[in-house]
Amino acid sequence: MNNLSYAVIGTGAVGGYYGGRLQQAGCEVHFLLRSDYEQVRSQGLIVESIAGDFMLPQVNAYRIPADIPPVDVALIALKTSHNSQIHTLLPKLKPNGVLLFLQNGFGIESAVEQHLKKNSPQQQNEKTLLPDILGGLCFICSNKVGPGHIRHIDYGRLVVGAHQAAGQPCEPTLRMRKIAKDFTCAKVPTNLTNDLPMARWRKLVWNVPFNGLSVLLNASTDEMMADSNVRSLIRALMEEVVSVANSWGEQVSPGSDRHLDNSIVDIMLAHTENMLPYRTSMKIDYDEKRPLELAAILGNPIIAAKSLNIATPKMEMLYQQLTFLNVANKPA
Amino acid sequence: MNNLSYAVIGTGAVGGYYGGRLQQAGCEVHFLLRSDYEQVRSQGLIVESIAGDFMLPQVNAYRIPADIPPVDVALIALKTSHNSQIHTLLPKLKPNGVLLFLQNGFGIESAVEQHLKKNSPQQQNEKTLLPDILGGLCFICSNKVGPGHIRHIDYGRLVVGAHQAAGQPCEPTLRMRKIAKDFTCAKVPTNLTNDLPMARWRKLVWNVPFNGLSVLLNASTDEMMADSNVRSLIRALMEEVVSVANSWGEQVSPGSDRHLDNSIVDIMLAHTENMLPYRTSMKIDYDEKRPLELAAILGNPIIAAKSLNIATPKMEMLYQQLTFLNVANKPA
Repeated sequence: MNNLSYAVIGTGAVGGYYGGRLQQAGCEVHFLLRSDYEQVRSQGLIVESIAGDFMLPQVNAYRIPADIPPVDVALIALKTSHNSQIHTLLPKLKPNGVLLFLQNGFGIESAVEQHLKKNSPQQQNEKTLLPDILGGLCFICSNKVGPGHIRHIDYGRLVVGAHQAAGQPCEPTLRMRKIAKDFTCAKVPTNLTNDLPMARWRKLVWNVPFNGLSVLLNASTDEMMADSNVRSLIRALMEEVVSVANSWGEQVSPGSDRHLDNSIVDIMLAHTENMLPYRTSMKIDYDEKRPLELAAILGNPIIAAKSLNIATPKMEMLYQQLTFLNVANKPA
Repeated sequence: MNNLSYAVIGTGAVGGYYGGRLQQAGCEVHFLLRSDYEQVRSQGLIVESIAGDFMLPQVNAYRIPADIPPVDVALIALKTSHNSQIHTLLPKLKPNGVLLFLQNGFGIESAVEQHLKKNSPQQQNEKTLLPDILGGLCFICSNKVGPGHIRHIDYGRLVVGAHQAAGQPCEPTLRMRKIAKDFTCAKVPTNLTNDLPMARWRKLVWNVPFNGLSVLLNASTDEMMADSNVRSLIRALMEEVVSVANSWGEQVSPGSDRHLDNSIVDIMLAHTENMLPYRTSMKIDYDEKRPLELAAILGNPIIAAKSLNIATPKMEMLYQQLTFLNVANKPA
């Protein structure tokens, strides 16, 4: 069985690391770049990693998506705040090619699907179907420390599942198994899930409090965990996310076991206590004066909560505070 | 009828302005100072004021409370964060002398009363009663812009009421009427209230959202009012305060009309929209790296809410966030 071919759309901390690993393992990989294009085209990628440093002196670098040859898998490693431009950023796909969104948040795939339907040329819309959409959750701490220079400092695991329009679970396809095999061979341990939405909710249990509060409190994970008031607040926010997630699961699949166990809150708190001190991705975005991923992390979950009649007063407050800071946080 | 004599305990933006006005109008006033003592003892006070600038080249300045001659009224214009030291800061009082706390927040007087009972010498405790405790709400925008230099930029009105141990309303005493007359003659319009606790709750409806959020969002009143998300949050916080206030009123005086009308929220929002842009006192404290008045503004109201079984999820979140920032906000 041959490896699949990949395009990395957004060669930053996540795309640069995963794409670099795939190329290092022998896959055909094409990298779409913007600000780092010149550097990466001439000098390649440097990856410092707890799983082993490596350099790729030569990579396939592109400025324009249309220049990328057709691939089996487009890895979308952009911030969700760029998803409204996604129709201008996709490469051509081979037959049965898929889009794999390596992004956090809820409602990512549905929003992208609707967006692509609306923004595809009319004739294409009638004759061709959209490619399959997959979602990937990246359990990784990595940063881009310079142009074409990635530093992977902790974790690295990937969880991949398929998007279904109605939010139903579904068995992994053969294509997904191949992707998982490529990643795992490339030192990226990858699990397949048949319940992508619940996996997204589970990750939000952590992301909502830690990403959001890290910006408001100008604090790293260890500083927040050391304060008993903030711990209480983190717990309360986590419980709100769990309650929305479980109502959502019950609504989409009544009587099923699609729910998060309440023990997840204690488990995540204990886990975070043992983590290396960590500056969250939202805090990094804020410090770098980039737009915050508020719709995916907070906005969509709150919309879901409202439609389910679940009260989320603290998530709402967090969202309202962060939207203000996001607007005020303009580059000088 | 002679004027009363006054001691100003804490000669800052509020104490310096009100004490200065009283002296300017002919009252006997004694000022307790700390960092500004030398300056004020030798150079007096300078007051710039929308109601008319004035200078007091000579004032009675003290470093030590025991040096102040007995007075009729001690005006406590310290931050509530100093109230735990109040027993060391009071001057001697003449017979029927009173303490008037010019501070924001709920539960100020009860806390002080308990503190003074606990910290008075035993023999005194048996023979003498505590002085009457009054509370004053200062509707004023003023800042200390330098040692002994006060700038009064907007408003100025004072509302004074008497503290009753059980939180009951009570008629103004003769002593209170004399105080109100002194202040009003000194260009400080002063109203007496027979319901100090509800007046305190009313002021908190504004202070809770604007003081708290100004610190978290690094914003002035006009910036917060201009953002629709923050306006929604301000409204929600105000509604929480109103709901605690009204439950408190109903518990202390069942069937009475001790409540805030819900229209207060719209009125205060409209009023704030027409105010000059304003940096709140809590924001000034934060910027100056002084302790924040969290117990009086948020902690005590939340304790009251809990004992009344009123949910205040957003006030709690605000308190938890601010306690973290308060601890982290140490002088460099």
